[in-house]
Amino acid sequence: MAKKIKTIAGGICVPKGFQCAAVSCGIKNPKADRLDLALIYSTEPTVGTGVFTQNEVCAAPVRLSSSYLKSSEPRAIIVNSGNANACTGHQGMLDARTMASLTSKGLGLKQREVQICSTGIIGVPLPIDRIEAKMPELIESLGSDGDLAARAIMTSDTRPKSISVTVKIGDTKVRIGAIAKGAGMINPHMATMLCFVTTDAAVSKAEIVAATREAVDQSFNRISVDGDMSTNDSVIVMANGAAGNKTITRGGAGSAEFREALSSVMLELAKKIVADGERVTKLVKVCVRGAASKMDAERVARAVGGSQLVKCSWNGNDPNWGRVIHAVGYSGARVKEELVDIYFSGVLAAQNGMAAKTEISKLSAAVRKSEFSVGIDLHLGKGEYSLYTSDLSPEYVDFNREEYALNRKR
Amino acid sequence: MAKKIKTIAGGICVPKGFQCAAVSCGIKNPKADRLDLALIYSTEPTVGTGVFTQNEVCAAPVRLSSSYLKSSEPRAIIVNSGNANACTGHQGMLDARTMASLTSKGLGLKQREVQICSTGIIGVPLPIDRIEAKMPELIESLGSDGDLAARAIMTSDTRPKSISVTVKIGDTKVRIGAIAKGAGMINPHMATMLCFVTTDAAVSKAEIVAATREAVDQSFNRISVDGDMSTNDSVIVMANGAAGNKTITRGGAGSAEFREALSSVMLELAKKIVADGERVTKLVKVCVRGAASKMDAERVARAVGGSQLVKCSWNGNDPNWGRVIHAVGYSGARVKEELVDIYFSGVLAAQNGMAAKTEISKLSAAVRKSEFSVGIDLHLGKGEYSLYTSDLSPEYVDFNREEYALNRKR
Repeated sequence: MAKKIKTIAGGICVPKGFQCAAVSCGIKNPKADRLDLALIYSTEPTVGTGVFTQNEVCAAPVRLSSSYLKSSEPRAIIVNSGNANACTGHQGMLDARTMASLTSKGLGLKQREVQICSTGIIGVPLPIDRIEAKMPELIESLGSDGDLAARAIMTSDTRPKSISVTVKIGDTKVRIGAIAKGAGMINPHMATMLCFVTTDAAVSKAEIVAATREAVDQSFNRISVDGDMSTNDSVIVMANGAAGNKTITRGGAGSAEFREALSSVMLELAKKIVADGERVTKLVKVCVRGAASKMDAERVARAVGGSQLVKCSWNGNDPNWGRVIHAVGYSGARVKEELVDIYFSGVLAAQNGMAAKTEISKLSAAVRKSEFSVGIDLHLGKGEYSLYTSDLSPEYVDFNREEYALNRKR
Repeated sequence: MAKKIKTIAGGICVPKGFQCAAVSCGIKNPKADRLDLALIYSTEPTVGTGVFTQNEVCAAPVRLSSSYLKSSEPRAIIVNSGNANACTGHQGMLDARTMASLTSKGLGLKQREVQICSTGIIGVPLPIDRIEAKMPELIESLGSDGDLAARAIMTSDTRPKSISVTVKIGDTKVRIGAIAKGAGMINPHMATMLCFVTTDAAVSKAEIVAATREAVDQSFNRISVDGDMSTNDSVIVMANGAAGNKTITRGGAGSAEFREALSSVMLELAKKIVADGERVTKLVKVCVRGAASKMDAERVARAVGGSQLVKCSWNGNDPNWGRVIHAVGYSGARVKEELVDIYFSGVLAAQNGMAAKTEISKLSAAVRKSEFSVGIDLHLGKGEYSLYTSDLSPEYVDFNREEYALNRKR
């Protein structure tokens, strides 16, 4: 992060004028007291935007939220974990509307000012009665503890993901806070991940939309755990202007600083999502350069970062450049095998498409760490791209083979 | 298989005029006596063709073989296992040429009449001296035991893969024999798989090329184990006319029967490759219908058949249609969620994009079998496509995470 951007404690309620709350409804587990319903609320009017899954099969709350955003600014986000409200048909849409309606009535907002999110199991009706019963308690308990919301949106995450920063816009300090959840089904173009961002910066509508798009492209669209794209991915950003800075407009003063801060917040959360992927043991940055185009560089990064065999080798601490180059070869990018160099954390593993003379112990040491990079230079042009990915562990498969069917109510 | 096509015992030496041999060179394992060098030879002139990996990074023997096929018909195939001779630079090309040269001299052929294949580890120089030392013994031992070659090409395969059939062309019975190896890196468009086909049918050059393309498209291009495409995939077909049938020409008499037999031979081997994939426990046929186009049907089949999360659920005997529909949604095909039906071995799991009322026990019973089908009907058009794939097991990952590095000579 640039020096102007300072990380501070507190999370999503750090920006002025934002409150949140979380309660346990028994959706995640009817028998355990686990937080599974959260509310984020701006006491002030906002401008906001959302970026949603590109999956053709998308959940009811995603459809509703993106529709609401077309005509209204978001003032509140209501989100449950434990059930995705996806593949739930007409009833699913009714349930999502009920979540919005209960929230708007409780807060005195228009229904369209509420964003609705769900994450969890697909194809099982949402137990809306349990949510309805807890709504008054949720709204009454609105306060400044952002950690509650970070915990309430977790599914198979092992830890809450939260960040807050300050950045100077002109002479005014503005704050950005954010929480996210990830774990499985993580792939570029949005996966089962949710991210909610609050900021007290004053930002024009056009700027918040453009800045969010750019930040998502630099962060959540550059991570991959298992190559699966979810039905529920959502990034929602609300800016309420409570910091009192001069409104940031597209390309205007402060835009560069704000965008850098927003991108860095999302990138930090994106990396946390990968590192906390289901049974993940490594956070790996794949950096491609020298490609004939940026598109080619992206193709190579996605092929390497998505290759099962490459990811298995990382889990085994194996600096297996042979598997890396074979994924480079099938990426669809222009490749001249005899020009390809491959590095592990800067240590040369392959040169001109062949084994380098580096001692294997040096390469193994690089790959043995819990964070390392794989550098690939195609020596064909100036195209560059990087993304974050993970290893693939036997435990991931074991975790995901569990017989959910037995736990499902039909 | 159609009734006209009869499966018989014997394998690759069943067609008249073909011989094979295999020896142990110590490439797979210097200390164990494992067959790792095989030779297949036609005593008669042939017409032949090859289909090779589309990976931009391709092994020296693949480059050499495809180049030879441009100007010569193949009379012999020399193949080693244990080392892929890929990413081995100039020396790799010299070594592949040496393999061809030693074979051609021993058999009295032109060098270009030899096809060369290698399969195994990438990026390690081929121990050509060990091959050279064993060539005289290999050539002297040419005989009729096709099983030797089937075993010699195995890498992580657990069993040899061989088939032979007879089919009537007019009044003449012709024979087709074939062997294959697979196991890891199996993906459409050719993976680490090798397949060698012999036939004593008399076939025109144009017909053997077209029939082989068609058969590969119906078989090896429709299987997927791990989504990785190898550097060494090769299918090589030799037809020597020893059966004495009237030459089969493109679209001429016997072409349909010959193509059906050739396709069925390759499809049987393709299914064997999936079923014997590394640590695979299920052979799953994904059948898509009702797509807006055949291309869309293929997109859906490949997304579902390639989804890590879907494959994990199969390993756990979980009839998880939610994961299937989420892969349908991100396939890139035109999809209307509310029209999608999903079946497990014909039992309805989801209807109109939602859970069907089928008892879960019936769905579980279907998925619990070692072979089952997943049917997906998009109800949008007439596009159909099917492919064979496997589950993904913790043992697959465990197998592929092994630290090969320690076993490599640098």
